[in-house]
Amino acid sequence: MQKNFELLATDRHSKARRGRLTSAHGVINTPAFMPVGTQGSVKGVSPRELRELNAQIILGNTYHLFVRPGLDVIKRFGGLHDFMNWSGPILTDSGGYQIFSLAKLRKITEDGVEFQNHIDGARAFISPEIAMEIQVLLGSDIAMALDECVPYPCEYDYAAQSTEMTTRWAKRCKEWKRRNGETAKRGLADSPIRPLADSFLFGIIQGATFEGLRKENAQAIVDLDFDGYAIGGVSVGEPEEEMMRAVEWAEPFLPENKPRYAMGLGTPPQLLELIARGMDMFDCVLPTRLARNGTAFTAAGTVNLKNAEFILDKNPIEENCTCEACREFSRGYIRHLIKAEEILGLRLITLHNLHFYLNLMNQARAEIGNGTFEQFRKAFVAGYKTRDAVTVE
Amino acid sequence: MQKNFELLATDRHSKARRGRLTSAHGVINTPAFMPVGTQGSVKGVSPRELRELNAQIILGNTYHLFVRPGLDVIKRFGGLHDFMNWSGPILTDSGGYQIFSLAKLRKITEDGVEFQNHIDGARAFISPEIAMEIQVLLGSDIAMALDECVPYPCEYDYAAQSTEMTTRWAKRCKEWKRRNGETAKRGLADSPIRPLADSFLFGIIQGATFEGLRKENAQAIVDLDFDGYAIGGVSVGEPEEEMMRAVEWAEPFLPENKPRYAMGLGTPPQLLELIARGMDMFDCVLPTRLARNGTAFTAAGTVNLKNAEFILDKNPIEENCTCEACREFSRGYIRHLIKAEEILGLRLITLHNLHFYLNLMNQARAEIGNGTFEQFRKAFVAGYKTRDAVTVE
Repeated sequence: MQKNFELLATDRHSKARRGRLTSAHGVINTPAFMPVGTQGSVKGVSPRELRELNAQIILGNTYHLFVRPGLDVIKRFGGLHDFMNWSGPILTDSGGYQIFSLAKLRKITEDGVEFQNHIDGARAFISPEIAMEIQVLLGSDIAMALDECVPYPCEYDYAAQSTEMTTRWAKRCKEWKRRNGETAKRGLADSPIRPLADSFLFGIIQGATFEGLRKENAQAIVDLDFDGYAIGGVSVGEPEEEMMRAVEWAEPFLPENKPRYAMGLGTPPQLLELIARGMDMFDCVLPTRLARNGTAFTAAGTVNLKNAEFILDKNPIEENCTCEACREFSRGYIRHLIKAEEILGLRLITLHNLHFYLNLMNQARAEIGNGTFEQFRKAFVAGYKTRDAVTVE
Repeated sequence: MQKNFELLATDRHSKARRGRLTSAHGVINTPAFMPVGTQGSVKGVSPRELRELNAQIILGNTYHLFVRPGLDVIKRFGGLHDFMNWSGPILTDSGGYQIFSLAKLRKITEDGVEFQNHIDGARAFISPEIAMEIQVLLGSDIAMALDECVPYPCEYDYAAQSTEMTTRWAKRCKEWKRRNGETAKRGLADSPIRPLADSFLFGIIQGATFEGLRKENAQAIVDLDFDGYAIGGVSVGEPEEEMMRAVEWAEPFLPENKPRYAMGLGTPPQLLELIARGMDMFDCVLPTRLARNGTAFTAAGTVNLKNAEFILDKNPIEENCTCEACREFSRGYIRHLIKAEEILGLRLITLHNLHFYLNLMNQARAEIGNGTFEQFRKAFVAGYKTRDAVTVE
């Protein structure tokens, strides 16, 4: 399939959009949620279960895969799709976010970033060009330009310099792809070989919490003409209003006919708020991570199934939910499994949570198509009780 | 279905038997392997996966379920079948084995055994009658009489006294069932209520490593006329030859028309050896427990997928295996998952190992039917390399 993004509908009452992204490994209807497959596996579920959940695309973390199993292994298996037996689209991050949040002894220069990984401390160096090479080797359908993700809070001067460097890095990624687009092949070995030119490359907009930087950087990154645009430097511990502002400042600079990705976000109401602010794609570890702690998402908010109130509860996690966990098991049984540390417990909650997120996007797409997204968003946000325990990661 | 056991075929060259046990929740073709669902879950797999693996029957551990979630919870859900959403047959142990191996501060009297559980130290008392009541409440299709499982090694005098008490306890279980068979109902709440009389009650033969005790006890337990017979007090750390002898001493006393269950056993070659010695049913934690350590069963013996030799290995765990793990994933990928501590890794090895055990029983049944079991057993045992790491548990 030729890579392509079509804008199918726009909401009259908000900036919400209904789109369709066509990649070499399949179609992604937007707004879309991408389950996170950090280490070549979406934690707790199998690729078959992801297919049954109708996940359209998953995310692979370049940094984690670079550290373990390492590129020689991925290369031997012809890329990430074949390695993990997932034949749908894969978005890979550039590795930047994790280098800045997990790795040790980072040394950032104009050239790139040197670091020691968090597993065995081995030294490595990643430049914009190397980040591209790695993502090509992973067989990425949507690759991300290497950026520096500054922490929250961040001094203005540092943010300003960093944002400018992120722009120069983005340009180098674009340039690398232009020069290698027809020769570099994504995936190897037994996989059908596809030229890099068939894959998407997204630029990432930084700028910390500063309006001027966010706007300047949005313009600068858009001027480089990427296949899509991401808002980065969010989900780094900032308050929700700062996160929303980062998106609102950048969004007016983004071309209508390109997909927009809000990185690492968010809670269910946040996703709807971000859709209303013109975002199309999301990834977040909340549905899988909270499941491992016994927390399930429902339309009324999160519930922790470890709570004693569920001991004798014969109801499913959520009434009328059509996921496997809710069709077949009770809250009382799942609570028992979590308390007894049986793996099936976190599997079932993970299935439910991913279904919840994917289904929320399903609904959002339908409501946008029907012109009823604003009512839907307002009703959902009003009905969803946010607890302190759920914070943006 | 009326409870029933039919002996369908006997091997001409060994004591191997092909049978069919009909229980209220379905038919079990023997020889049969029963995956162990210790805490209301066969570790690492879902009931749906067990059905797909063609597991005919699973085992539930009375002691574990008594301690957690506790009987009030099981009662509320109408029994173990509904609680865990498994509609096939369930065999429950009496709780004795775990009281003697896990619980603290045990005090054994003629009346029963008082103990503190290993989770929160709460005191409890189980008698033969209470063990029956609990198994009725669990909704067991095959219940076990309460026995004392003595450790290995064991003094003759203690073993002799204990074995006699086990006989008296067995008699009390039988008597309890006779008196309550038509009134006590298995399962409650929404489940179809079935009278206890529809379920099987197996007697357990003890006698430690002493020929005289084993033979006397086999005769004494058989004289009580149970629905089936189990060899207990094996899989307690004794050498393999002691285990085989315990079975060989008791077997000649067992009636042909009743099922025979070798408790807690064993490795794949041991299962075939036990079938050749007239055993019909087996349960063992090896396939699920070893999977969690990265160890997979193959016809050539066990392999530990953590080993570096598998890093670049694109082959399945076992060539020509039809399990989900082998159809869809490579050794190299599964090794990565285990090293990265991704849950999917142990799930896939668990699926493979359970498939291996269940398929071995499938083959054994077919070979007995074809009159070729002896050749099959010898060829399998010769080809299976036993490593020190795999010991009987």
